[in-house]
Amino acid sequence: MTPSKVETLRWRDDHLEMIDQRVLPARFEYLRFDSAADVALGIRDMVVRGAPAIGCAAAYGIALEARRLRHHPPTEFISELNKGFDCLLQSRPTAVNLGWALDRMRRIWNACRSTDKAAPPHEIAERLLSEAHAIKSEDIAINHAIGAHGAALIADRARVLTHCNAGALATAGHGTALGVIRTAFASGKRISVIADETRPFLQGARLTAWEMVQENIPVMLITDSSAGHMMSRGEVDLVIVGADRVAANGDVANKIGTYTLAVLAARHAIPFYVACPLSTIDLATASGAQIPIEERAPDEIAGFGDLRWACEGAVMRNPAFDVTPAELIGGLITEKGVVRAPDERKIRALFDQGAP
Amino acid sequence: MTPSKVETLRWRDDHLEMIDQRVLPARFEYLRFDSAADVALGIRDMVVRGAPAIGCAAAYGIALEARRLRHHPPTEFISELNKGFDCLLQSRPTAVNLGWALDRMRRIWNACRSTDKAAPPHEIAERLLSEAHAIKSEDIAINHAIGAHGAALIADRARVLTHCNAGALATAGHGTALGVIRTAFASGKRISVIADETRPFLQGARLTAWEMVQENIPVMLITDSSAGHMMSRGEVDLVIVGADRVAANGDVANKIGTYTLAVLAARHAIPFYVACPLSTIDLATASGAQIPIEERAPDEIAGFGDLRWACEGAVMRNPAFDVTPAELIGGLITEKGVVRAPDERKIRALFDQGAP
Repeated sequence: MTPSKVETLRWRDDHLEMIDQRVLPARFEYLRFDSAADVALGIRDMVVRGAPAIGCAAAYGIALEARRLRHHPPTEFISELNKGFDCLLQSRPTAVNLGWALDRMRRIWNACRSTDKAAPPHEIAERLLSEAHAIKSEDIAINHAIGAHGAALIADRARVLTHCNAGALATAGHGTALGVIRTAFASGKRISVIADETRPFLQGARLTAWEMVQENIPVMLITDSSAGHMMSRGEVDLVIVGADRVAANGDVANKIGTYTLAVLAARHAIPFYVACPLSTIDLATASGAQIPIEERAPDEIAGFGDLRWACEGAVMRNPAFDVTPAELIGGLITEKGVVRAPDERKIRALFDQGAP
Repeated sequence: MTPSKVETLRWRDDHLEMIDQRVLPARFEYLRFDSAADVALGIRDMVVRGAPAIGCAAAYGIALEARRLRHHPPTEFISELNKGFDCLLQSRPTAVNLGWALDRMRRIWNACRSTDKAAPPHEIAERLLSEAHAIKSEDIAINHAIGAHGAALIADRARVLTHCNAGALATAGHGTALGVIRTAFASGKRISVIADETRPFLQGARLTAWEMVQENIPVMLITDSSAGHMMSRGEVDLVIVGADRVAANGDVANKIGTYTLAVLAARHAIPFYVACPLSTIDLATASGAQIPIEERAPDEIAGFGDLRWACEGAVMRNPAFDVTPAELIGGLITEKGVVRAPDERKIRALFDQGAP
C-alpha cells in the first residue's frame, strides 16, 4: 500500500486542514478549520467534496467541536455538541456518508455517556478525535480494497472513462473510481483515463486531471457532451464512476451526468461500474426515487469563478446529482468485492457478512 | 413575417458587418469584414457560427472579394477570386451549407463568364453581391417556413429542450430550431425553452438564452449533463436541434452532445426533431460515417475566454460535432415539411419535387 500523494484532510495538533478544492489546480493550498460550523461551511462551499471525504470531514468537525468545548460545563458541552451534529448533517443532503460518519461519532459519544461514570468532556473529545482518525485510516484501507477488486476488471491498455472526481480528493486517500485506476496502473496495466470535465464545478478538468497528472497516468480531458461521441467511435472500453448514495435496490445517486453516461454505455455495450465503499450504501433508502437530490445555487451555472458568461434573465437549474437505475449498472465495486448486476438481495448480503 | 430582432449579418454600402458571437452576451457589437480572407477568419474563429449563417457569410465573403478585386485585370480577378473560394471553403469542414453557398456563388460567376461577351469584373461583383443578398433573404424565408411546419409539432405548454444555438444567430434570421420555437410562441402557444449551456463555446448559455430573453420567451439554462436528469424527471416534452450536415440516409451531424440527447430522448420516448433547411442536406454524403468531424483547438476545453481552469499536462480532445443516426430522429423539419422517420428515399423525394 503506497501512500497517496494527495492528503485531502490532515490533522495538525489542534486543528484540521483541508485542501481547498475550489482553487485547484491553479493553487494548491490548505485551509484551516477549528469548529463544526467551520467544517460545515467548508462542506457546503465545496472546499471539500466527494461522499467519503465529506464523511471524514464531518467526523473531524465533531472532533473539533468537542475539543473546542472540552472545558465547558457538561450540560453546555452536550447542547453545543448536539448543535454541531445538526449543523454538519445539514451541510449537504445527497451523500449518505455524511450521516454514516456522524452516526459513528454519535455512537462513540453515547458510549462515553452510558458508562456508570460518564466521561468528562476532555476525555470525550479525545475519543471522538480517535474515532475521526479511525474513519480516515479505514477509508484509505477500504479504497485500496476497492482498488484491488476493481483493478481485476480492467484489461491492459483499457481506456477508462470517468466522471467528476472520485479520487484521492473525494476520499481520505487513493480514491474509489480513481483508486481502481491507480491500483490497475500500479500493477503495470497500461491504461489511460478519459476525464469528463464535469460542469459546473469542473471536478474532472480541475481535480481528476490534476490527480492523474501528479502520478503520470495518461489522461485525456473532454467536455461532458463528448463522451457519447467517444463511445460511438469505439474509444471507450470501460466506465467507472463513484457514488454519493446507493439505494437498497442498487440505484445510484452520483454527480449530475452519471445517468447520461450509463444510458450511453448501455447503448454501446460498454461495461459501467460504480466504485463505492459500503458506507455509501443506504439500506434505509429503498430506491433512487427516495434519494434527495441537492439543487445548488443557480449562479454556479452562470459561469465559473469570477467569470460570468450566461445571459441574464434566464432561469437556471443546477441539480448536483442524478440517479442511475440499477438496471444500467454492470457492477458495484466495494471493499467486499464486486456485486455484479446489483439488486437488493445481493446488496443486503454484503452487510449480512458482517462489517468489513 | 415579423422581422427578426437579431441581424446576424448585414451589408453596409461597401462592407459586411457581423455580430461578434464570441463576446455575446457581455457585449453586443458588430465587426467589419472587407475580404474573403477576413470572412474566412471570422468563420474559423467563430465570430459567426451555425451552418446557415456560415453559408451566408461565405457568400458575402465572395461578394466582398469580387468587389475588392473589381478594378483588377480580368486574369488577376479570376485567379484571386478562385483563391477566395478556396480560402472560404477551408474555413470549417463540417457544415455543408458553406460548400452549398459557395457553389451557388460559383454558378453565378460561371454564368457571367460563359456568356458570349464575358462580363467585366465590376459587373460580376455586382451580380455576386446580389446573389449573396438573395441567399440571405431566402434563408430567412426558409426559416419562417421551417418555423411554420415545426410549430405544428409543439403542443401548448410544451417544454422544449434545445442544444447549442440554432437560432437567428446561427442563420440569416429567425433560426431553425429556435425559428420553430419563435413561430410556436408567436402563435400563442405558452411554451418554454430548456437550453443546454453547450460547452465548450457555450452557445446555449450565451446565445440561445440571449435570443430567448430578447423576445421574452421563457428559458431555463442547464448544464449539458443535466438534460438526462430533466428527462428522467418528466420535465422535457420535446427536443429540437439544428444540423450542420444531414447525410443522404438521414444521419445528422450537429454540435457535440446532440447524439447524447438523441439517445436519452429515445430512452424516455421523447420526440426528437432536427430543424434544417434543404441546404444542410448533403446527398453526396451517403451516411454519417462519411461526414468529416471538425476537431477544434484543444485549448477551448481548458477554460473559457481568458480564464483557464484545466490542469496542465492533460491531453485534450475537442470534437466540435457528433453524428446522430437517423434511427434516433423522429423527424427532419425542413422548409418543405416534416420528414418523419427520415430515410434516403424520403430525403431524395424532397429534392425530386424541385428546388424550394
